[in-house]
Amino acid sequence: MIAPLIKNIQSKIQLTEEEIKLFADSWKEKKLDKNDLLFKTGDICRYDSFVISGCVKAFYIHPTTGKEEILFFAIEDWWATDLDSFSNQSPSDYTIQALEDTLLLQISHDAFEKLLKAIPKLERYFRLILHGYISAIQKRIILTNAHSAEERYIEFVKRYPKIIQKVPQYLIASYLGITPEFLSKIRAKRSLGNY
Amino acid sequence: MIAPLIKNIQSKIQLTEEEIKLFADSWKEKKLDKNDLLFKTGDICRYDSFVISGCVKAFYIHPTTGKEEILFFAIEDWWATDLDSFSNQSPSDYTIQALEDTLLLQISHDAFEKLLKAIPKLERYFRLILHGYISAIQKRIILTNAHSAEERYIEFVKRYPKIIQKVPQYLIASYLGITPEFLSKIRAKRSLGNY
Repeated sequence: MIAPLIKNIQSKIQLTEEEIKLFADSWKEKKLDKNDLLFKTGDICRYDSFVISGCVKAFYIHPTTGKEEILFFAIEDWWATDLDSFSNQSPSDYTIQALEDTLLLQISHDAFEKLLKAIPKLERYFRLILHGYISAIQKRIILTNAHSAEERYIEFVKRYPKIIQKVPQYLIASYLGITPEFLSKIRAKRSLGNY
Repeated sequence: MIAPLIKNIQSKIQLTEEEIKLFADSWKEKKLDKNDLLFKTGDICRYDSFVISGCVKAFYIHPTTGKEEILFFAIEDWWATDLDSFSNQSPSDYTIQALEDTLLLQISHDAFEKLLKAIPKLERYFRLILHGYISAIQKRIILTNAHSAEERYIEFVKRYPKIIQKVPQYLIASYLGITPEFLSKIRAKRSLGNY
């Protein structure tokens, strides 16, 4: 089951056979049923999690209004972790919940740091992963602040076609900062071939 | 002039004397006068830049409306780079401009990759720097989407007291996604001790 993660890593750095074995021994499987929580606000994110199959949402709950804000969705081949909480082993500001039955690979904080010491070139892999994520969230900020809801939806469909298939429309609307009704209108307009 | 950068790095990883020398030899100074551009939309971000003194803004210009959106401000001890453009040596979606006379340390893409090969533990330093930046922009997304303008301003003042001193109010308003007039009202209310 570790193969997709090894493949993901080898797309950025090369590992020897011994390193692959050492690496593989550090991870364990975790199954979530639909709606299960990986962790919730105030919990410590004890594991770094890589999604093998399924889909999760990471979200923030406003402490007084209770309003949910989607931080990210993660499907197969993506990471699903609160970096701050995991790195500092401190309470998380976020909640991660399975949107369908989900299979993860997990590593504890101690095992993660040991692995980085044993295979220092993994630092490069994780740096490049963070870099890719920064690129995506910078884009999201710009789209949110400078572009219309329609432009944001078109860009989302282009960038995340698999998520469009898996995630309910009302959650995509929430991610895009629009109402589900408005998203329906945009989708209807698109399906009529207006653009 | 490299001392602040070395200090920043040594706060996260340890370098030997030889490594410090090799590291220092890879950087050169760059001076920007107030309003000078470091690069503009469509240019390639050829250098990774660390701010020694001064202040820059990174912003996006909407291709049809011409509206500016602030991506980040960077003052001393911060990085001021378009990661995507720098890493891929591809045209940037952003512009970086000096808000006051600014002194930078710069490294070219080739020299950066050579340095990472010569001192692999720098991968860890840059991973941790990216991690800190992710933490900040995730917070920004949540504040923008789930919190009021007042809450966003209070959080900004708390997190970035030095930027408040340096950056004109209309740019902080732009960063927070509010009008300068509304920011003035919030500031007036705060100065009256209402909260």
